[in-house]
Amino acid sequence: MRTDGRGRPRLEQPRRPGNTAREEILDAAAELFTSLGYASTSTRRIADAVGMRQASLYHHFGTKDEILDALLAGTVDEALELAAELLAEPGPFAPRLHALVVGDASQLCQSRWNLGALYLLPELRVGRFEILRLRREELRRRYRQLSVGVISESGGPPDSDDLPFRLVESVINRRSDDGGCAPEQPWVIADGALRVLGWDGDFEHVRCFSAQRLRLAFC
Amino acid sequence: MRTDGRGRPRLEQPRRPGNTAREEILDAAAELFTSLGYASTSTRRIADAVGMRQASLYHHFGTKDEILDALLAGTVDEALELAAELLAEPGPFAPRLHALVVGDASQLCQSRWNLGALYLLPELRVGRFEILRLRREELRRRYRQLSVGVISESGGPPDSDDLPFRLVESVINRRSDDGGCAPEQPWVIADGALRVLGWDGDFEHVRCFSAQRLRLAFC
Repeated sequence: MRTDGRGRPRLEQPRRPGNTAREEILDAAAELFTSLGYASTSTRRIADAVGMRQASLYHHFGTKDEILDALLAGTVDEALELAAELLAEPGPFAPRLHALVVGDASQLCQSRWNLGALYLLPELRVGRFEILRLRREELRRRYRQLSVGVISESGGPPDSDDLPFRLVESVINRRSDDGGCAPEQPWVIADGALRVLGWDGDFEHVRCFSAQRLRLAFC
Repeated sequence: MRTDGRGRPRLEQPRRPGNTAREEILDAAAELFTSLGYASTSTRRIADAVGMRQASLYHHFGTKDEILDALLAGTVDEALELAAELLAEPGPFAPRLHALVVGDASQLCQSRWNLGALYLLPELRVGRFEILRLRREELRRRYRQLSVGVISESGGPPDSDDLPFRLVESVINRRSDDGGCAPEQPWVIADGALRVLGWDGDFEHVRCFSAQRLRLAFC
């Protein structure tokens, strides 16, 4: 019999992706939050969707807010790390911003559930989500740093430095409207993020840089 | 004594902007939906916020969904009409797209509550909101028509035709993050909407066109 990692037998076989009970809970919660809504989803319902008792769910997460926090942290952390790496690398800013946009937009496109749609929840504005909000603000700041670099290299409009971050977020709205995300979408958005900053260099070259940097292809 | 427009005396003096009880209900609902969340707001709470009995609220709106529908229709209708007018006008596409972006983004910026944050609600995906969804889809289609025109005039990237609509929506995310909208934001976004389509003409000229077309200034 499979256990939930703390030695308790599970009610039934796992139905969800994830190697641990924790991952299954996160997956079930993500599905319910994005399809039913956050306020309308109870921890009881999440436990039912995983096939575990509500009491067992509380061994992993103390509250529904903790589940939301863990889910949304997962949408920010990878991009935050990639942004830090790219900021520390030498060379012109345009290919580095391009790679960040492709990497971050791909993750928002390919995640199993459209979690970014939860960023606008009023529930997130309370104090207990402050660390998450600060991490997202930090990601936005790193986008801005790279964007300001591109603007100064290309003589572009100084007040457009927040737009690349916003173009990446648009993946969320498009997934919501169209029920999916075309594979080329992150690349279209990355090219757009440079154009909106007034950059008009060799797009083939920056696409190649991003593909190699993100280990998607050699070109 | 003031009445609610159907001859019933009001419990107290109005506390909210709006000339009619209907407008006060919409304003209170908009505040509660964007601050508490849609699922967490009851019609009882909306009635309390207006200072009317719940039964009186039901003379104006049969359900909470009807209130949401009326609120969101208000965010789309004006832009839809402006887009139709601009599409029917002669001349190059770039100034017309610019004017639509300034007009629509200004409305999203200046509305008393950040209602666009409600577009991503899973509750909106059910059948009873279909007319609203179709109207928003139609607005998106009109943005695309103007964008395709700009792309063909400027030899820009054909797959970027959805990005101007997405840049306008970004006003919603930015208001949510920063708690407000800078007055120049619609203009920054409108310039960005042309740049992202590969347009690189005379920005002063299109800004003037938009200012005159929207009766904001003569220049």
